[in-house]
Amino acid sequence: MISVQEAIQQIQQQTIQLPIIEVDLEDAIGYILQEEIRADRDFPPFNRVTMDGIAIKFSDFEKGVRTFAIQGIQLAGEPQKSLEGQQTCLEIMTGAVLSEGADTVIRYEDVTISEKEGQRFASISSENYSRGQNIHKRATDRKSEDLLVSPGIRISPAEVAVAASVGKKRLQVNALPKIAIISTGDELVEVDQIPLPHQIRKSNVYAVQAGLKEQFGIQARLYHLNDDKEVLHSRLQEILSAFDVLILSGGVSKGKADYVPEILDRLGVKKAFHRVKQRPGKPFWFGATPDQKVVFALPGNPVSTFLNAYKYVFPWISTALGQQASPQIFAQLAAEFTFKPSMTYFLQVQLKYNPQGILQAHPIEGKGSGDFANLLDCDAFVELPENQEHFRKGEVFSVIPYRFGFSSMR
Amino acid sequence: MISVQEAIQQIQQQTIQLPIIEVDLEDAIGYILQEEIRADRDFPPFNRVTMDGIAIKFSDFEKGVRTFAIQGIQLAGEPQKSLEGQQTCLEIMTGAVLSEGADTVIRYEDVTISEKEGQRFASISSENYSRGQNIHKRATDRKSEDLLVSPGIRISPAEVAVAASVGKKRLQVNALPKIAIISTGDELVEVDQIPLPHQIRKSNVYAVQAGLKEQFGIQARLYHLNDDKEVLHSRLQEILSAFDVLILSGGVSKGKADYVPEILDRLGVKKAFHRVKQRPGKPFWFGATPDQKVVFALPGNPVSTFLNAYKYVFPWISTALGQQASPQIFAQLAAEFTFKPSMTYFLQVQLKYNPQGILQAHPIEGKGSGDFANLLDCDAFVELPENQEHFRKGEVFSVIPYRFGFSSMR
Repeated sequence: MISVQEAIQQIQQQTIQLPIIEVDLEDAIGYILQEEIRADRDFPPFNRVTMDGIAIKFSDFEKGVRTFAIQGIQLAGEPQKSLEGQQTCLEIMTGAVLSEGADTVIRYEDVTISEKEGQRFASISSENYSRGQNIHKRATDRKSEDLLVSPGIRISPAEVAVAASVGKKRLQVNALPKIAIISTGDELVEVDQIPLPHQIRKSNVYAVQAGLKEQFGIQARLYHLNDDKEVLHSRLQEILSAFDVLILSGGVSKGKADYVPEILDRLGVKKAFHRVKQRPGKPFWFGATPDQKVVFALPGNPVSTFLNAYKYVFPWISTALGQQASPQIFAQLAAEFTFKPSMTYFLQVQLKYNPQGILQAHPIEGKGSGDFANLLDCDAFVELPENQEHFRKGEVFSVIPYRFGFSSMR
Repeated sequence: MISVQEAIQQIQQQTIQLPIIEVDLEDAIGYILQEEIRADRDFPPFNRVTMDGIAIKFSDFEKGVRTFAIQGIQLAGEPQKSLEGQQTCLEIMTGAVLSEGADTVIRYEDVTISEKEGQRFASISSENYSRGQNIHKRATDRKSEDLLVSPGIRISPAEVAVAASVGKKRLQVNALPKIAIISTGDELVEVDQIPLPHQIRKSNVYAVQAGLKEQFGIQARLYHLNDDKEVLHSRLQEILSAFDVLILSGGVSKGKADYVPEILDRLGVKKAFHRVKQRPGKPFWFGATPDQKVVFALPGNPVSTFLNAYKYVFPWISTALGQQASPQIFAQLAAEFTFKPSMTYFLQVQLKYNPQGILQAHPIEGKGSGDFANLLDCDAFVELPENQEHFRKGEVFSVIPYRFGFSSMR
């Protein structure tokens, strides 16, 4: 039996080759970028006006000129115009190129427009101006060829916007792995069936499938196999050949019908470990084939499957997709807690920010490790280390969140 | 010009009728549930065994019996068997129904199996047992008809699992609104075009589209309209008739070509407000038609569009979809900051949990409100209230996160 930390190390050593593909910008959200995004020109690409108003030469203003003849208008999206002569101005709009010859923009709020014999004039009512005001100067944000986004970033709306602005209609990302999720166990029936008294409906595999979709946009296939050695052998062989990653639920405990480790061994899946010093989820089995098919065989207890998916499977997929490591999330225990066995305990908690900006973890104990409904009241697991029995109120531990909004940072 | 708080109130008053639809469980992740999920039977539905081992009568154990004749085996998924006679046991597996007549399970780790003349025996090596051990008793988690999930919850993998376990193959949710995102401005060109010096590529609309997809699974349609009154009028009329919600970017400032408010008025979209006491994003326009078409007309500056989408548009959509209000996220300012104008300032920050579990907001100031690339370095906006100029390090303010992992709690 190995520790949680050893399990993570062994899992993270397991690599997988995923081809680089291109996705359209409109579909790119949530993928992990696998190329550099660089500025294709300066940002802003020109001296960009940031207020609606009039463009003037500041030297006129310095000389005391406050009324300017309006020479015309410079709209956003128009080629650059030129300011001719002295004491003249152009009306100019936010987003426009600053007119040649002008160096300052006075906003409309500080200007009065008048007209005399067909000529329009702008009079400035504020003294409170300096050269260069209301202009976002060319290249002040980024220079052409500057690195904007590095590989390994999860593409958020901000990256989408920046990619668009530099002309990246398609983005390079890793292809998503093909994943099969396989429930085992004769006691399980389909969701749309009425279970007999000794049966229960499949639910774990739906949770893992939903998590993969939410976190990575992966559309995993579901399978169910009964506790029959020959069926398990032949079907798992087929599934192994068709998928990159298998996530099994059930069949890894010490029970008489727990054939999964034996069958995986016969199929050439080399065991990395079986059993981790943790609760819930101890009988977790992990291995891989020589050709890099990766198998997570999780205990079938609902909360065990769930915890192991969030603690081990999803972080490994992040790494496989090339994501830069996410910063850890920490929370304060909002109530004391005791757990004596020498193993890591994953405590179910509700997360709340208090008005001091502290993330607090409120323990909500289920009525047994099989109490799936308890997950509904919670947001996360707090990881309580194995070398400690008493956990004080206010102590800080890392958390594994499973609700949107707490899943990862970047 | 109204305050941020008034703007939110007016927006949240605007209702929309979205029909209830059913989605398949495998597609339900991220939708807002619009029905109750109740237990269809007790949880667990039977006295459920939680360890692999042997099932005994505890009264035998109390009488000093430590060796039991093995009568057979009770697997998970098998109908309940019955323990007959005295000093007998059944081997029994995790997930199995507790056999009739048995009331305690001794785990294999505490049992030695032996065989004598074809009869197998189990000898218990531990004294450390009490009645009912290793059994998850029927109905201890939830009783039949108990309410498990209320309407208004964002469906996470936990809700998917519980829905599956009570036989809900399809779930009632609100239909997603049909949303059009419309860029305006003659200076904008398509992503795959090479802009002339005075032009820039469209990017805001892609960011808003990506955010809608990530937060709600909404697939919004994109449009672009040039600064031409007749084109704006006829095309906006068409778009208004085909969509529930319009999100415009650009055309709402005081510029000469900012025709959007005038055209919306001509089309019968009643203005609720124009301009909010905030930076960035002041010229924000909001209104609706008598038949509940809702129009968010956002200023075209990239960061302004972005902030307004996250501050106003997305929360309104959450409400429209029937989501229960999310708890607010708070963070501590990691450095002091000063902003003098009497308006709400949305400061761009990087979020980090420190090892004390405190969420810290590190200000990363852009080089102007048009600096879109600055969003890349940040995770959120901190909302600094209008009635304050100096914001101290360590003060706590609410944050508006825009990266996956910080978007909302539940």
